[in-house]
Amino acid sequence: MSKHSPCCEDLQRERARCSFNLDELTNIIDGGKYATEHRRKIDNILLSDPELSDPIPPDYLSYEERYANELRKTTHLSKTQEEKGLTMRDLYTVHGLSVMRDGNPLSLHVSMFMNAILGLASKEQQDKWLPLVNSFKIIGTYAQTEMGHGTFVRGLETTATYDPSTQEFVLHSPTVTSSKWWPGALGKTSNYAVVMAQLYTRGKCYGPHPFLVQLRDLDTHRTLPGLRLGDIGPRLGLNTNDNGFLQFEHHRIPRTNMLMKHSQVLEDGQYVKPLHSKLSYGTLVQTRVDIVSDVRKKLMCAVTIATRYSAVRHQSELVPGEPEPQILDYQTQQYKLLPQIASVFALTFSARALQEVYMNTVAGIDDGKVDLLPELHALSSGLKATAASDASSGVEICRLACGGHGYLSSSNLPRLYTSTTCAITYDGENTVLFLQVARYLIKSFRALRRGQPVSPSVLYLSVQPSPVYASKLSNTEIVSALGRGAQWLVSRVEGQLQQLEATGHQPHAAWNSCSIHLVQCAEIHTRYFMCEAFVKKVEDISKDASHGVREVLGQLCRLYLLHHSVSASGLLIRCGALDTNMVGNLEKEVCKVLKSLRPQAVNIVDAFDIPDHFLGSTLGAWDGNVYQRLYDEALKSPLNKTDVPQAYYKYLRPLMKANL
Amino acid sequence: MSKHSPCCEDLQRERARCSFNLDELTNIIDGGKYATEHRRKIDNILLSDPELSDPIPPDYLSYEERYANELRKTTHLSKTQEEKGLTMRDLYTVHGLSVMRDGNPLSLHVSMFMNAILGLASKEQQDKWLPLVNSFKIIGTYAQTEMGHGTFVRGLETTATYDPSTQEFVLHSPTVTSSKWWPGALGKTSNYAVVMAQLYTRGKCYGPHPFLVQLRDLDTHRTLPGLRLGDIGPRLGLNTNDNGFLQFEHHRIPRTNMLMKHSQVLEDGQYVKPLHSKLSYGTLVQTRVDIVSDVRKKLMCAVTIATRYSAVRHQSELVPGEPEPQILDYQTQQYKLLPQIASVFALTFSARALQEVYMNTVAGIDDGKVDLLPELHALSSGLKATAASDASSGVEICRLACGGHGYLSSSNLPRLYTSTTCAITYDGENTVLFLQVARYLIKSFRALRRGQPVSPSVLYLSVQPSPVYASKLSNTEIVSALGRGAQWLVSRVEGQLQQLEATGHQPHAAWNSCSIHLVQCAEIHTRYFMCEAFVKKVEDISKDASHGVREVLGQLCRLYLLHHSVSASGLLIRCGALDTNMVGNLEKEVCKVLKSLRPQAVNIVDAFDIPDHFLGSTLGAWDGNVYQRLYDEALKSPLNKTDVPQAYYKYLRPLMKANL
Repeated sequence: MSKHSPCCEDLQRERARCSFNLDELTNIIDGGKYATEHRRKIDNILLSDPELSDPIPPDYLSYEERYANELRKTTHLSKTQEEKGLTMRDLYTVHGLSVMRDGNPLSLHVSMFMNAILGLASKEQQDKWLPLVNSFKIIGTYAQTEMGHGTFVRGLETTATYDPSTQEFVLHSPTVTSSKWWPGALGKTSNYAVVMAQLYTRGKCYGPHPFLVQLRDLDTHRTLPGLRLGDIGPRLGLNTNDNGFLQFEHHRIPRTNMLMKHSQVLEDGQYVKPLHSKLSYGTLVQTRVDIVSDVRKKLMCAVTIATRYSAVRHQSELVPGEPEPQILDYQTQQYKLLPQIASVFALTFSARALQEVYMNTVAGIDDGKVDLLPELHALSSGLKATAASDASSGVEICRLACGGHGYLSSSNLPRLYTSTTCAITYDGENTVLFLQVARYLIKSFRALRRGQPVSPSVLYLSVQPSPVYASKLSNTEIVSALGRGAQWLVSRVEGQLQQLEATGHQPHAAWNSCSIHLVQCAEIHTRYFMCEAFVKKVEDISKDASHGVREVLGQLCRLYLLHHSVSASGLLIRCGALDTNMVGNLEKEVCKVLKSLRPQAVNIVDAFDIPDHFLGSTLGAWDGNVYQRLYDEALKSPLNKTDVPQAYYKYLRPLMKANL
Repeated sequence: MSKHSPCCEDLQRERARCSFNLDELTNIIDGGKYATEHRRKIDNILLSDPELSDPIPPDYLSYEERYANELRKTTHLSKTQEEKGLTMRDLYTVHGLSVMRDGNPLSLHVSMFMNAILGLASKEQQDKWLPLVNSFKIIGTYAQTEMGHGTFVRGLETTATYDPSTQEFVLHSPTVTSSKWWPGALGKTSNYAVVMAQLYTRGKCYGPHPFLVQLRDLDTHRTLPGLRLGDIGPRLGLNTNDNGFLQFEHHRIPRTNMLMKHSQVLEDGQYVKPLHSKLSYGTLVQTRVDIVSDVRKKLMCAVTIATRYSAVRHQSELVPGEPEPQILDYQTQQYKLLPQIASVFALTFSARALQEVYMNTVAGIDDGKVDLLPELHALSSGLKATAASDASSGVEICRLACGGHGYLSSSNLPRLYTSTTCAITYDGENTVLFLQVARYLIKSFRALRRGQPVSPSVLYLSVQPSPVYASKLSNTEIVSALGRGAQWLVSRVEGQLQQLEATGHQPHAAWNSCSIHLVQCAEIHTRYFMCEAFVKKVEDISKDASHGVREVLGQLCRLYLLHHSVSASGLLIRCGALDTNMVGNLEKEVCKVLKSLRPQAVNIVDAFDIPDHFLGSTLGAWDGNVYQRLYDEALKSPLNKTDVPQAYYKYLRPLMKANL
């Protein structure tokens, strides 16, 4: 690995002053020694396989060529998966970060398609289909979103009408807006899809249900009659996973292709409803946990690149007459990057806290307990939305912190942004998700007031906060100030809702006219959850950690709390949780913590342990050889193959010679 | 124009309730009736020329083909410029918005190159070169940025050493970091460049000076000996203006190619210094004024697209059981889009206010007065930085407000973002610019305290604000609250600087350790300038405006003030400009103004008067026929030319059949 090659002097100096054990921190980030070993094993497999590299930088290829190039890599990986000792889940984690940066045509197959079969198909159905799925005989995707219908699942237009005479469902797209539109790998790669459609039987609509639909001939790969399939065209990013469209023309599938783990349609058309109507959201929750983990990895890459570059890049003047300093020495640069490093840890620890709630909930469901589902739904929605938004703004801050070179594709920061920002929209649009969290908060707040039980994550909404007078707030005090902010906002908005309803407004109109502030309730609630999880995990870890790691983790956690309490200072002053002096002190402390974290910045991102090949960046490689790499990459541009481009003769010369 | 074709019912309803005279508002936005006519004349010329359209959507072309396609259009336009009755300046305004969306290979020629010749070359030099420039015999760019040196001009490494024996300058690139890197059109298009290099004569360095350097043979277009020229590779956006690199190997040019309007090197090598050392920044200021205008146009396009789409898109449920409402009816959606519409007006009016300062300053310089230059520099820096940052975040908010479809290239929102965000970095990186503004603020604040005169734009820093008790703040009161916030911040940071210096810190170290807050000073100062300009221009215009226009402008201005004072509420409470009740009232008023502007949203963006072809968007066309357009555009994807892609046979089939 590149780690053993020499690095530039600037980075040598940074690394020489590392104050903690790198491997120890790496293990904490990965989730334990075993997790690091497992990840490194996969990393090494991927790095050592020459078939997984790109002979030509994909940016120079045409749209079709780029799709083919990724399909080449992902099929190679899938074929050699077993001999490499990789699981399907391992294959999924490859998506995005490492070798298939602009979308992997098989990632839906190994994630949502497989999750849907596991979560929605009956035991018999799974026995029949899973072997085909696992051996790539059938390759699938998950087709829910329609051209005219996204996050609001009840609005879907595609119909699946049961015909008892043939024991078939008839799938139909009644309008152009009902076209399935967006599912990854739908356009060209998949021959099967789990399709969500409005179920009609015996003349009654039962809402959206999942159906396994064959799309293409298993031998010729041709689109089946009764279907229209295609690619939806280029996008801001993720251009190599053939997001597609699908239209049904009264297309028939066997009754037994409805996924029947939860609800069923019997031969005679009788509808059997599920035990719990929320159960089928399981897939969605798992997907959201995965999204948090995915965007966190993107942020890790971006901040590794930007931090190393900021240690190598010299610019302007700090001390008059002295050489240009490393830009990482500027407070403004530290203020851009260090909170992003802290954010990586916050996402890591709060994803783990969510995972724990998830495991408890799943265990509960198996025992027939479903009362934890609303909490899981609220936490996963809030965390997905916040993670997507924090990570994309974080990646973009890192890109901009690299100045012009961050705009170059060879920095890989553009691609990291375009492949992170989409998470704000997909699998539940952020604003819609935050409003769902807010609904849960208002409901819980009202339950608390009535003395009814609520879930653990919202218990704090009724705790009477103790006033704080300290000049330096403890971590716990900052977290509880954020909690008080959430409490105050929720209670205030709830009051407004009540007042509006009392003065004759319909509940839906009242809700809509408070929705800006409802979103803010959900945001601050989620931030509270994340800060609390950060503090708690750092406390737990610190029990066994070495001094150096404890120091660094403590400072990162502190920075995160300071940063977010200062950002929310308007709210925190208004609700009385902080006074203006305290905010002034928090602001000053931000500057102090930035200064004390600065010497470890490069070392912390080193501990993220991302191989150069996965960073894929001229600016962020381990050795810091930025400028030569920029130059070498530029020489690969096809425009540099000849000195004078063909376009000169065709267009420029006639203009320049026009008036001779 | 498309305006006369029928539009969908949703948009018909929006337009039927227009409460103001569209043309009147259009004239205000353009800057008068004549300006609208002139713009429409140019629009129509561009729209009616079939040579300016793209036979194949550029996203499907390779990197080289895309460059050739834009070169085709821009050379055609340049050739037919005179017969079309267009000026060079008209050509420049074409850049970006309309027909050359991803970078025009001749835009640097008609802007910065020409500005540099006009601003930096002597009268004799202009007489010699301008005819060649105007007739495109020579095509140029402006080469300042180097691979290792950006905004900090003094750090440039390229040297120009005078050799009196041959009366030549020897240009040299001593290192890889000294390569000129980034200038648009440098890679392949230009045969000349204005190059900034460290001037050495008689053994002494006089800092960066401009030189006109021939790059390519005028007949063959081959790179001249002693130079290395090339393309720097793909970028997040603007991929068709061949940003390039340039290295000098002891390359000689005649002494008379130094641009000598301000400083000169005589035949014997004697250096004659300029009248005023800041004079050569004139080009940069003009460029910044242009940047504000350019990003404002991008924001206008984005918010037109997002607003029309939000009137056509129906989603979710407002009233239970009723059809899905237009998403523009959601308060959260209004909160995303309406502040962006207001922002367009704020940018329009503050750019005009800056233009006035600029004209006064230029007139002053001609009379030998240069004391207005620092103010112009501070205002143009602050406004460039704020405009770039407001417009890019605004465009991104619009893109995200369109959900998944905003991520599709066919919405044109991705390209609008990628071609707006670069303005944060180029021609003065935002953080660096804000710190320059802050330096000016601290200097002015200290001057005021000593009773010395300062420029008009910073006079408010010493005004004793009168306390406000009103329950509803007037516009003037909100503006002065922002001013008070700026005052408080500047005075506080100045105090910190003093204290740090008094306790033994070097001035540069003190400055650096306050720089997060110095940036905030500059931001709030610029926002104050913008809000003040907005209020003042609306007052002026309202004297002659009709009732409907007055209403709408008043509401937009109010929304802008409310939005930015609520955003700054933490600061405004801390400095005592507002109390928590007032902030609560401002927040409530935001909701009220959103509601009253909602019915006019589509009409206001209609008044932006941007033809469909320039919007280039499936989502934003005048007729609102969104879904059919999405579908028709998708069908153009080359992946849709065949049902089964070649890549299937090569990669997918072997995987699927592997275990048979």
